[in-house]
Amino acid sequence: MKSLLDQLCIVMIHTSHPGNVGSAARAMKTMGIHDLRLVNPTRFNSPETKALASGADDILANARLCTTLQEALADCHYVIGTSARSERSLRWPQMDACECGIWVAEHLPKQKIALVFGRERTGLTNEELEHCQALVHIPMAFDFFSLNIAAAIQILCYECMMAVRRTAQTSAANHELDEEPATAAAMENFFTHLETALVEVDYLDPDNPRLLMRRLRRLFGRINPTQSEVNILRGMLAAFQGRKFARRSNS
Amino acid sequence: MKSLLDQLCIVMIHTSHPGNVGSAARAMKTMGIHDLRLVNPTRFNSPETKALASGADDILANARLCTTLQEALADCHYVIGTSARSERSLRWPQMDACECGIWVAEHLPKQKIALVFGRERTGLTNEELEHCQALVHIPMAFDFFSLNIAAAIQILCYECMMAVRRTAQTSAANHELDEEPATAAAMENFFTHLETALVEVDYLDPDNPRLLMRRLRRLFGRINPTQSEVNILRGMLAAFQGRKFARRSNS
Repeated sequence: MKSLLDQLCIVMIHTSHPGNVGSAARAMKTMGIHDLRLVNPTRFNSPETKALASGADDILANARLCTTLQEALADCHYVIGTSARSERSLRWPQMDACECGIWVAEHLPKQKIALVFGRERTGLTNEELEHCQALVHIPMAFDFFSLNIAAAIQILCYECMMAVRRTAQTSAANHELDEEPATAAAMENFFTHLETALVEVDYLDPDNPRLLMRRLRRLFGRINPTQSEVNILRGMLAAFQGRKFARRSNS
Repeated sequence: MKSLLDQLCIVMIHTSHPGNVGSAARAMKTMGIHDLRLVNPTRFNSPETKALASGADDILANARLCTTLQEALADCHYVIGTSARSERSLRWPQMDACECGIWVAEHLPKQKIALVFGRERTGLTNEELEHCQALVHIPMAFDFFSLNIAAAIQILCYECMMAVRRTAQTSAANHELDEEPATAAAMENFFTHLETALVEVDYLDPDNPRLLMRRLRRLFGRINPTQSEVNILRGMLAAFQGRKFARRSNS
């Protein structure tokens, strides 16, 4: 069966423990992710690899062996590097594991995405980071302790699969509504409209509007409305103001 | 530092691979969970256990060795068994990993909770299940493939830690607002008020109100507002109607 997750690949660079490759293959398979690429692994085909793969032999058999990271990423459109902790550097957009799953689920339909894992002890080199467009880290209780590489792959694959499932459910629900989410600009226009209407009925003091509008922004911001819901809200406001709001307008 | 997660313990029953106990200890430590209890483990103190614990030696050193599950659970108030898949049986409340994290975060302050993991190949026996009040499963891509036990512990510990963090953030935000969520009755009163106001301005046809009110219920239902936010919404409605809504009233 074709799955969105077929567009996601896991790249492991210079993995030194053969068991970790096997555990990673099993972790991937549990979450329905099959495309494994190995850059210069150490003793990849050891009995330990197979033992720990524990039934994910198909993933090992189809794993692509590469000599450079460039070769492994040749057909990928977006590359996310994994990092042991949230980096202080602002050179790359940063995500945590959950945000990464959401990002991946949103972008998989249009592009092939790679999650890249560095060496067990030292992670990705600066040169390897140059191939990445974003970085992901898994939240942990301690800064100076680290996840096993297969455990990290397990969590990220889990978050990606869960996000793809949630997206499928949401888009089924949206399809039922046949609607697009409102744009940030449409929301801004709604808040301007709301503020004007509230000033007209003296509910809002235009000389001191801040706290109330901030609370209303927080409140309506949580709705994450569709465009047609914003149209309903603005239609209600216009009715309260005694005039009509053109439902098709994005003004 | 004291942490809510000190109230959560992991119980492994008859674990046959010593490496899995080591990997489980590492998985726990990454997520700040320290209380490990082992019921009749096989060759627990092997070099492989230590190697895979990789710095989580404190968890192994403090692990409680028990001869029965009862002994391991003696001080626990709530016991959640892990199951390879969502059970068809309705004898136990079922949760997935994410729901389990939320449940644990909600209930930890008041009780000690145990997550119980059965044997690697066969899981929990019927007799062991009798000690559980609920079951948790980790969603997977396939029904007939299984997670490594340490990988399962990794995901559940991750979900519990993430949920505890989110709860701490939410309660900090609620504390900032110093507010209670609105009751269902307060929401009903708001919807009645909204409907009346919309009929007054001819936005809603009282002879055919159903679809619009249903959409508005869905929309405002997503806000999950606090009581004082409902008061603001009703205050706005009253202002649009040209009269005052007593902010302290729950009518």
